[in-house]
Amino acid sequence: MAIFTGFGSDNHSGVHPEILHALQSVNDGYVIAYGDDEYTIQTIKKLKQVFGKDTAIFFVYNGTAANILGLRSVTDSFHSILCAESAHLTVHECCGPENYIGTKLVNIPTSDGKLTVDLVQPYLIGVNDPHMAQPHVMSITQATERGTTYRPKEIQALAKFAHQHQMLLHMDGARLCNAAAFLKTGLREISGACGVDVLSFGGTKNGMMYGEAVVFFNKDHARYFEFIRKQGMQLTSKMRYISAQFSAFLRDELWLRNASHANEMAHLLAQQLQEIPGIKISQKVEANMVYAIIPNQSILRLQKQYYFHRFNERTCEVRLMCSFTTQPEDILRFAQAIRRSMMQKK
Amino acid sequence: MAIFTGFGSDNHSGVHPEILHALQSVNDGYVIAYGDDEYTIQTIKKLKQVFGKDTAIFFVYNGTAANILGLRSVTDSFHSILCAESAHLTVHECCGPENYIGTKLVNIPTSDGKLTVDLVQPYLIGVNDPHMAQPHVMSITQATERGTTYRPKEIQALAKFAHQHQMLLHMDGARLCNAAAFLKTGLREISGACGVDVLSFGGTKNGMMYGEAVVFFNKDHARYFEFIRKQGMQLTSKMRYISAQFSAFLRDELWLRNASHANEMAHLLAQQLQEIPGIKISQKVEANMVYAIIPNQSILRLQKQYYFHRFNERTCEVRLMCSFTTQPEDILRFAQAIRRSMMQKK
Amino acid sequence: MAIFTGFGSDNHSGVHPEILHALQSVNDGYVIAYGDDEYTIQTIKKLKQVFGKDTAIFFVYNGTAANILGLRSVTDSFHSILCAESAHLTVHECCGPENYIGTKLVNIPTSDGKLTVDLVQPYLIGVNDPHMAQPHVMSITQATERGTTYRPKEIQALAKFAHQHQMLLHMDGARLCNAAAFLKTGLREISGACGVDVLSFGGTKNGMMYGEAVVFFNKDHARYFEFIRKQGMQLTSKMRYISAQFSAFLRDELWLRNASHANEMAHLLAQQLQEIPGIKISQKVEANMVYAIIPNQSILRLQKQYYFHRFNERTCEVRLMCSFTTQPEDILRFAQAIRRSMMQKK
Amino acid sequence: MAIFTGFGSDNHSGVHPEILHALQSVNDGYVIAYGDDEYTIQTIKKLKQVFGKDTAIFFVYNGTAANILGLRSVTDSFHSILCAESAHLTVHECCGPENYIGTKLVNIPTSDGKLTVDLVQPYLIGVNDPHMAQPHVMSITQATERGTTYRPKEIQALAKFAHQHQMLLHMDGARLCNAAAFLKTGLREISGACGVDVLSFGGTKNGMMYGEAVVFFNKDHARYFEFIRKQGMQLTSKMRYISAQFSAFLRDELWLRNASHANEMAHLLAQQLQEIPGIKISQKVEANMVYAIIPNQSILRLQKQYYFHRFNERTCEVRLMCSFTTQPEDILRFAQAIRRSMMQKK
Repeated sequence: MAIFTGFGSDNHSGVHPEILHALQSVNDGYVIAYGDDEYTIQTIKKLKQVFGKDTAIFFVYNGTAANILGLRSVTDSFHSILCAESAHLTVHECCGPENYIGTKLVNIPTSDGKLTVDLVQPYLIGVNDPHMAQPHVMSITQATERGTTYRPKEIQALAKFAHQHQMLLHMDGARLCNAAAFLKTGLREISGACGVDVLSFGGTKNGMMYGEAVVFFNKDHARYFEFIRKQGMQLTSKMRYISAQFSAFLRDELWLRNASHANEMAHLLAQQLQEIPGIKISQKVEANMVYAIIPNQSILRLQKQYYFHRFNERTCEVRLMCSFTTQPEDILRFAQAIRRSMMQKK
Repeated sequence: MAIFTGFGSDNHSGVHPEILHALQSVNDGYVIAYGDDEYTIQTIKKLKQVFGKDTAIFFVYNGTAANILGLRSVTDSFHSILCAESAHLTVHECCGPENYIGTKLVNIPTSDGKLTVDLVQPYLIGVNDPHMAQPHVMSITQATERGTTYRPKEIQALAKFAHQHQMLLHMDGARLCNAAAFLKTGLREISGACGVDVLSFGGTKNGMMYGEAVVFFNKDHARYFEFIRKQGMQLTSKMRYISAQFSAFLRDELWLRNASHANEMAHLLAQQLQEIPGIKISQKVEANMVYAIIPNQSILRLQKQYYFHRFNERTCEVRLMCSFTTQPEDILRFAQAIRRSMMQKK
Repeated sequence: MAIFTGFGSDNHSGVHPEILHALQSVNDGYVIAYGDDEYTIQTIKKLKQVFGKDTAIFFVYNGTAANILGLRSVTDSFHSILCAESAHLTVHECCGPENYIGTKLVNIPTSDGKLTVDLVQPYLIGVNDPHMAQPHVMSITQATERGTTYRPKEIQALAKFAHQHQMLLHMDGARLCNAAAFLKTGLREISGACGVDVLSFGGTKNGMMYGEAVVFFNKDHARYFEFIRKQGMQLTSKMRYISAQFSAFLRDELWLRNASHANEMAHLLAQQLQEIPGIKISQKVEANMVYAIIPNQSILRLQKQYYFHRFNERTCEVRLMCSFTTQPEDILRFAQAIRRSMMQKK
Repeated sequence: MAIFTGFGSDNHSGVHPEILHALQSVNDGYVIAYGDDEYTIQTIKKLKQVFGKDTAIFFVYNGTAANILGLRSVTDSFHSILCAESAHLTVHECCGPENYIGTKLVNIPTSDGKLTVDLVQPYLIGVNDPHMAQPHVMSITQATERGTTYRPKEIQALAKFAHQHQMLLHMDGARLCNAAAFLKTGLREISGACGVDVLSFGGTKNGMMYGEAVVFFNKDHARYFEFIRKQGMQLTSKMRYISAQFSAFLRDELWLRNASHANEMAHLLAQQLQEIPGIKISQKVEANMVYAIIPNQSILRLQKQYYFHRFNERTCEVRLMCSFTTQPEDILRFAQAIRRSMMQKK
């Protein structure tokens, strides 16, 4: 029997049919490459309606690049970037940020993936001392890698603190849609409107094929981004196909439909797990993922049928992801499998 | 009237319908992300049938990345990379190679975009002198940026020379298909079989949407490429969609059908231009592009209707590209327009 | 009254007269630059008598460079370097290591500046996962930035652990002499002989003017170091003057005479502080520095007469350094000043 | 018989006695490290009297670092730096500039090591095109690596051209003193006063032991240099010893006395060579070096007694350097040896 990989990552899903259709719909004829085409111009216009007309918005291929090149635009090599210890930026980008920007990432331990002013404060040291990396950007993830979300007030507080200390606020929004769906806000309301300076706006985990947007809420920060993107190997030649995807993503709020479904499925999954004795939901379930502590034996048995990750290879906390394609019956079947795995003798 | 952009670049075309169809055909169900899926495994297998079973093959997003990361894998920062002065690597990647690999590019003037042993020889200086960058890779482009192609014997001679001097031979094969179509050879026959060590194998300019392959003919050179690709921001999550494209690209030799058409169109275009007095074809027409010297006034008039590039902004030599979608009637109409532009008084 | 800066850093001292004399003694005549001179050849020979004849040894200008370039030689950009949270490497080199090597530094909290296998173990995660930086080097400092020293057995355990996990052991020996003096061992006994792979051997903090040595205990690791050093801006032209210093440093064990004196002075200082009520020695005093917790008011008063650093700008723990020039009477006078500062009313 | 190395490089000489004496004269007592000491403050003040009070001046260890870090301060990674094909920057720094700044060096062929507006003009291409490195700095060497010097008017023309095109003018002044001595001007008159923006001011080749100065004629360009220097491994701890050297270098115009002597010796050498039939002086002799074409057999014979470099390992043009210690009798003896080498049969 094939292993079911649907809970392993929201990247394991395919592409939403409306996105696929959009790729086809822009296919005819010649258009100028590298973004000087009408499709791209129109899509950027639509995105500016969402994020604000004074933004500067650029497409890159993936989320790692959106983070690294967005940060590269506002960071010098002697700066440091403060982030949660669990941030994708520092854990899962193979030290690409250090490599490409040349900066230090300062990892701040958190219980739920969320930075707070109190957590960050003690790391603001060495300012103006040439021996020490200069704190320059705080990077937060919305929704976090732990499935939690920042409320607007929390982001505002972080932005205020950052700006008071001549720092900037960066947001990894690989799952911004899931956060907005959970918080019932718009996309701008939980990013630029709260003081975020640079945003990675992700689509791939929420139904797109490839392509992410880097949104600069202050155009000055984007002054050289076209050069940075090209030099950073992230300028796609046939840009119309990323533009078409983002255009479809915004049409009839596809992003919201997809994200809401994914979140609902995560809540259903959490509800099911909650009822299984011996299993502990270990993070608040807000976006489209569930963290749970499952006995080790049970994990090992389950992994013969289901593909999913431990949060840390040394613990029994597992991460279960839902996506826009997750089916309730798959969740019920999975819950059943977990129950069975808990009852088996060693 | 809209400006016709079809001769501006082979990137101005859309995506071949068989490629689009392939994207759709792999869309259902969950598969593991980042390349551990069956589609990718099968496609890599097919590519190894083409390039050799002892190769190591990886997908990245675009040609700039294929060049930079492929070279990064075999080059240390104190090395130098020798290439033609016209190479994409050195002209059109916004000094990404210098930036990412940290090496020096040594630009060698050529008349036709092709390196030869005689041209390279004088640049082999400073070997073992720690004050000087160490020549380590020769990079050639097949077909070249000037539309010419290397014959197998020419590549063999360069490879032999490189290896005799403890150097490697890299090939930018963004238009390898066009070269193979012109030379009536297979893809391996004009790359690995001639001694090329690392190849960027391009699909985007020949009918794909995005995605290129880095082919290492010696697996040892690829030992760390998975880390290099991830760190280099070029690991796509939904890998199945690049794999599907390459799979379709190989099926029934789509690559050859597309490239042959593009080449034929370039030859037709050259034939037309040849007959216009006052215009000079300035490079041998082999692959899918035509270089011609056109009087400046004529260029300026034409550019009101046609989008195309001068080879160098200071000269009257223009580059005219054909692609798998180029239509004979567009060529005839363009030839007509050129004729008219030549006849107008100042 | 001038502020007394003698306890601020062992870099605040001048140069030992024997070192100054050595500079003069090699001044006559022409010698080949960049290290191909007889003085350098002889000094390297002497250093090999100390560290082992199968070592490869190179001079650079300073300790930051010795660390960064030594590590650069054995580390690829997708690696990570594990070090104590207090390591100079990660705190006081302005993220030079991240910038120049492109790697991640993994900061491990310690109570006394010393790594142990138990402390390091939990950080060995993500091995072979291309999403994650690959643990590749453990870097320890001997003596540590906290004034403590690693016993040979402790280093052996770390080296064994590192090698078992295909990692290397790097040692920042900016104060290796002080450690050897305290432990009553030779320099090799607490570095290469315990399994250290790469060593930064410092002289500047112990009586030299400038110049540090990078010692590779496995010559293979140094294969490209001459290129790395030149490219890294650390190849001095008039090499004879660094060589002369190191030669004098070894002659009649000047390094040991200097380090022993500095250590003794630190012990005298600790003894004095111990007797002052309200002051707590906060780290074991082994090498040439004393850490003590002093009431904030007292620190502020003292700093009007004495220049010294807080360990962390947010705490009341201060670092007091001794050097080869520290005089007992200065210590007694300082102890007196501390006492006075403690008695003053707010 | 030992090989005479005096004509091999001006780095082959020792240190001027006044410099050595200066090192000794600042040796007593404690001073704050890293440049916050009175000696450094006073020396910077003196240098500002020479170069202008609105400059920002910093010390680094060597000329390679002065070039790379000075340029790093004013260059972004997507920029290019235009220099003569013979520039130290591009030939003899082991691609350190590409590595550390991440930029492209554009090598411009010259007959005498000197850039002119006409030579540079054709390389100003691709401006504002994100595919291409953006020309941002012109770097010239004064005196050049070919022994020639720029007249003030020539520098002014280059500066004007650079500034008109939003570029900066950098000067590698490793031998600025020799140029000033030859041109009978002050140091500022042929650098900042002509519009140079950033200068590497060298002392090592002219009698110092180590240490160079980076002079920014516009303080804004130096805003982050303290961080760049520390991160770039070029902040010396015991700064007083570089300061003392520069202080002595300025005192009673030691720099001019040394440079004048070196230049005179080069002119004497040229005069001698001129009289030898079969030898051709191949560059104008202005500063302290002589380029001459000598028959290959003769070079091979001479190199058994004399150490000197060919300009290019493939030609018979040799570079002969003079320094502040060169003795007329050594020149006469060398001329004699050349004559003999020319008369020997094969």
